[in-house]
Amino acid sequence: MNDLKKTDAIALQNVNIHDGFWSKRQRLVRDVVIPYQWDALNDRIPGAEPSHTIENFRIAAGESEGSYYGMVFQDSDLSKWLETVGFQLSLQRDEQLERLADETIALIGRAQREDGYLNTYFTVKKPGERWTNLRDDHELYCAGHFIEAAVAYHEATGKRQVLDIACAFADHIGNVFGPGPDRLRGYDGHPEIELALVKLYKATGSRSYLELSKFFVEERGRRPHFFDEEEERRMVKRPTDRRYDYFQAHLPVREQHTAEGHSVRAVYLYSGMADLAAEYGDAELLEVCRKLWHNVTRRRMYITGGIGSSAHQERFTVDYDLPADRAYAETCASIGLVFWAQRMLEIDPDREYADVIERALYNGLLSGISLDGKSYFYVNPLEVWPSACNHRHDMKSVKTTRQPWFGCACCPPNISRLIASLGRYIYSSSDDGLYVHQYIGSTVKQTVGGVQTELTQTTGYPWHGQVTLTVSPERAAEFAVAVRLPGWCKEPKLTVNGAEVDVSGAGAVSNGYAKIRRVWEPGDRIELTLPMEVEVVRPNPHIRDCAGKVALQRGPVVYCLEEADNGSNLRDVTLSTGGEFIVEHDGELLGGVTLIRAQGWQTAPDAASESLYTTEAPPRTAVSLTAIPYFAWANRGEGEMLVWVREA
Amino acid sequence: MNDLKKTDAIALQNVNIHDGFWSKRQRLVRDVVIPYQWDALNDRIPGAEPSHTIENFRIAAGESEGSYYGMVFQDSDLSKWLETVGFQLSLQRDEQLERLADETIALIGRAQREDGYLNTYFTVKKPGERWTNLRDDHELYCAGHFIEAAVAYHEATGKRQVLDIACAFADHIGNVFGPGPDRLRGYDGHPEIELALVKLYKATGSRSYLELSKFFVEERGRRPHFFDEEEERRMVKRPTDRRYDYFQAHLPVREQHTAEGHSVRAVYLYSGMADLAAEYGDAELLEVCRKLWHNVTRRRMYITGGIGSSAHQERFTVDYDLPADRAYAETCASIGLVFWAQRMLEIDPDREYADVIERALYNGLLSGISLDGKSYFYVNPLEVWPSACNHRHDMKSVKTTRQPWFGCACCPPNISRLIASLGRYIYSSSDDGLYVHQYIGSTVKQTVGGVQTELTQTTGYPWHGQVTLTVSPERAAEFAVAVRLPGWCKEPKLTVNGAEVDVSGAGAVSNGYAKIRRVWEPGDRIELTLPMEVEVVRPNPHIRDCAGKVALQRGPVVYCLEEADNGSNLRDVTLSTGGEFIVEHDGELLGGVTLIRAQGWQTAPDAASESLYTTEAPPRTAVSLTAIPYFAWANRGEGEMLVWVREA
Repeated sequence: MNDLKKTDAIALQNVNIHDGFWSKRQRLVRDVVIPYQWDALNDRIPGAEPSHTIENFRIAAGESEGSYYGMVFQDSDLSKWLETVGFQLSLQRDEQLERLADETIALIGRAQREDGYLNTYFTVKKPGERWTNLRDDHELYCAGHFIEAAVAYHEATGKRQVLDIACAFADHIGNVFGPGPDRLRGYDGHPEIELALVKLYKATGSRSYLELSKFFVEERGRRPHFFDEEEERRMVKRPTDRRYDYFQAHLPVREQHTAEGHSVRAVYLYSGMADLAAEYGDAELLEVCRKLWHNVTRRRMYITGGIGSSAHQERFTVDYDLPADRAYAETCASIGLVFWAQRMLEIDPDREYADVIERALYNGLLSGISLDGKSYFYVNPLEVWPSACNHRHDMKSVKTTRQPWFGCACCPPNISRLIASLGRYIYSSSDDGLYVHQYIGSTVKQTVGGVQTELTQTTGYPWHGQVTLTVSPERAAEFAVAVRLPGWCKEPKLTVNGAEVDVSGAGAVSNGYAKIRRVWEPGDRIELTLPMEVEVVRPNPHIRDCAGKVALQRGPVVYCLEEADNGSNLRDVTLSTGGEFIVEHDGELLGGVTLIRAQGWQTAPDAASESLYTTEAPPRTAVSLTAIPYFAWANRGEGEMLVWVREA
Repeated sequence: MNDLKKTDAIALQNVNIHDGFWSKRQRLVRDVVIPYQWDALNDRIPGAEPSHTIENFRIAAGESEGSYYGMVFQDSDLSKWLETVGFQLSLQRDEQLERLADETIALIGRAQREDGYLNTYFTVKKPGERWTNLRDDHELYCAGHFIEAAVAYHEATGKRQVLDIACAFADHIGNVFGPGPDRLRGYDGHPEIELALVKLYKATGSRSYLELSKFFVEERGRRPHFFDEEEERRMVKRPTDRRYDYFQAHLPVREQHTAEGHSVRAVYLYSGMADLAAEYGDAELLEVCRKLWHNVTRRRMYITGGIGSSAHQERFTVDYDLPADRAYAETCASIGLVFWAQRMLEIDPDREYADVIERALYNGLLSGISLDGKSYFYVNPLEVWPSACNHRHDMKSVKTTRQPWFGCACCPPNISRLIASLGRYIYSSSDDGLYVHQYIGSTVKQTVGGVQTELTQTTGYPWHGQVTLTVSPERAAEFAVAVRLPGWCKEPKLTVNGAEVDVSGAGAVSNGYAKIRRVWEPGDRIELTLPMEVEVVRPNPHIRDCAGKVALQRGPVVYCLEEADNGSNLRDVTLSTGGEFIVEHDGELLGGVTLIRAQGWQTAPDAASESLYTTEAPPRTAVSLTAIPYFAWANRGEGEMLVWVREA
């Protein structure tokens, strides 16, 4: 740690999740998603789009005949699967799974070239063209994902082979790229290696990886532009659009103040930048990250934590342009936002980061996976009218039902690695204690104030706002426990061993965290009460698409109306915000969810005229509305859905 | 006339327009638009997209060297210009203009092949490939536009040359297409020739043209499918989408009950179908037209008379899918809708047709041309936020300012031919009298009940609803004058020579027309009073995009808010519909328009929070709103605009 960085992550092995909401999802990853995705990578899912990923590695290893198939970044699907396995093994060793992973790692090793290079697309399909199109070909992106997988698997198992493959590749990359003569001053069109190299540095202690990461970040967007130069070397006939904002390479990163271009690329880059700011104590770079953070979270983020509002180029557009029905809000982008937020939070514990993690986790990220773990959304709209989605070309990216797999299958393994590594996002440690960021039932073991301490969290989150933290140092010790008071909660209450702690006065709370410093005895109990009222959320008046509409939120969970509960033509519905909301937990429905019942209005049945335009308002009739958590939508067949409801 | 057709058109020469609103627009066509578009066809407009149309004809005539340039249907731009000139000369002979047209016709004649074929694209670029791709190549479409031009020019001048060229081409087409052996059983992907051949039949009396039109209509959509067959003959490697609804060829026309596909193609086809229904007394075909009419006007039409709500394929989508900001509503489609409506109206005088003509004329059609006549909208959105239009790929077809010309320049000459021929849409004659459909100051001369009669209309329409009709038969005669009571008018009043005529009782009005049968003396006066209240128009509740919004209309004119008058972020504005509206005529603004002042609400300045989502509604403040006629928008620079305003 340096002056900039105030907290540290806690190793995944040290956090054990036992949570009513998340444990079943982690089991789903272990029991269903990892095997399912392995089958997908091996093309064994009937009706799903082909993957060919494992076969590409076999061909690259010379063990199978055939041609490469898939996206240029198909290798990364395997890496994300392997990373998920690594996280899973950190939670719980599993001989059979480990054997499968070891065999896969061995296959990857056999597909690696002698000089350390590893990429089945170029090895099989374009052996002479390595590193000739950094802008488009994702070589360093794939390298990054493999490095992340290697670090995770090594951390879980202690096995060196995978790390050796990664280091050999990273060393090779270090020989190709850099400021020296005969090196390429390039960087990848899709950021990812930057954050991966920081992980490899931390796993190995080898500072050259950190420096290589810094090199990639600092080169980005510099003039003369590397993407121009490599394009000229390729002698392409029609030079492409050279604005490069799509790649976050329109300006040197320190001059970027708004989030532009492809949203996943953006947040992966910003994550790497935050890492470097922390490692180098680079206040200027951190300030850039903060400006970008404000732009994203105060101008360009959906209420679900979705980002990137344009299907074309999967990109950011302009401030406040957040259409609900044409939201792109790629699942991967919300995941990347969580990666970035967690890094910002570790540097500087401020609840605005943890609040955004929570917002994405319980909404736009979790919506990416079906309740059974076998189908996925790539795009997460906030409103769906299936008729329009199925007939309007400008909505063709919006799917009304989750898909079993994708030709571009970045999202499914990204969700599974996030869920498997969820333990990383709950706590962090500081010089003087422990931070509790997320409310997820779990036990963390950590040395705090020189004393081995166990903290156990129990909670009914996200359905109930009661959180109990039992602090158990080996022996009595003085340190601080800082608990986040979520931004959505208006009247949090905190007690320690039954005695109330003031969280309302000035100084009692810093950046949204109530910091309790005292001598902790084994078994001391912190009780945090976060009353979960049904909140009527109002959009900023500049979000044109939401004008006149409200959304319902309870705790961290954003709600939506679905046709299954409320009939069709949901835009016609208005919600009475002055009336009473009834909160009802249904343990069976949608895997167990809390519902909100509300009153509203709708055009009386058959009252609509045959005319398109009249001067008479048709009579309206009172209706009872049922809202379900947004993340659970589209688990009951195709139908309309909407988050932002017109206010009566 | 047969049993089906109740009225007849009146020749353009017999209607003289002298109108406060339209005469200046007709003069604009004569003085500015015809010369401007001639310059455009000759590539003399600096900064406009190239046309090359005249040059294509010179090359085809062997009088210039070079290659063909432009769309495959570029010839039609010249035909529409020539048709406009024909209409203009019907209004007023002009030696200089006639000389230019005659020279142009001579050039067209020299570009015609010996066998009668006429199409510069195929003559210059693909001489061996005539009639091999009817689906895509617009050969019959271009033929149709030339025939229309020829008929109009011949009607105006009596000169035969242009009609001879057209007949030679039509005869050639009749030798290529038809049911006989060695003939193609094909039809054009873009309907147009169907309605043109009916005009040629009427101009020449040659029934073969009518039969050829019927052939084209009846073949459409039959199985085995001609488009499949010609594609197979072309031996294309990847057969295209064979649903063919884009071309209205998915079903035989008599089985089509909903308007599908490209909207301009659709209404051109339906116009031809209505013509054939009338000429053949074909009640079944008329019933098909009526079903399609109901689908378009009761499910798929914007309040502006715009149709075709998808930029992709410029097409109809599904019922009630009418997004304001992504409206396509091509100018040509509204013009085609007028063509079709006029044919339906002549068959069966029912105000619903005349109301739609009026709706298109004063709104979505007229918006296609700037007040100075020199720039054009192809796409007519009902809401514009320039930021999104300029940055969202799914809105790239929406232009925020009118353009000087287009690569695909179908719309500008289509508007000018419509305005020049406006006299055709005002009256029609029936066995027992005269119908008055549109309120446009004008004089019509027509034999009615065997007596030469002049009817003079004076009106301040569309700003004032007072209409005076002076009926002047050569001598006293009994006949009927039927006047339309527009659908928008709740309490029309009618007097004849000062005596009130009851228009409220049953039987007094038939299909929206008050029919006054009496012995008319020269100088008899009908006074029609159509009180123009500011109407708050409410959308059908199934139009999802309009939910909670209203539009202002006064008389036939739909209003909009523009940023120039009301500031930005217009979606944030709500309109008080319970309050008073102030109507104000401004003789200077926008060429002279009546404004509506209204009260509304908007978020108080600087009251918006920095957060995207809050639970506090920001304070609102009362604002004065100014609405201008929709057709006049975008004449004061780039800015926001919207038609559908949230109701307070």
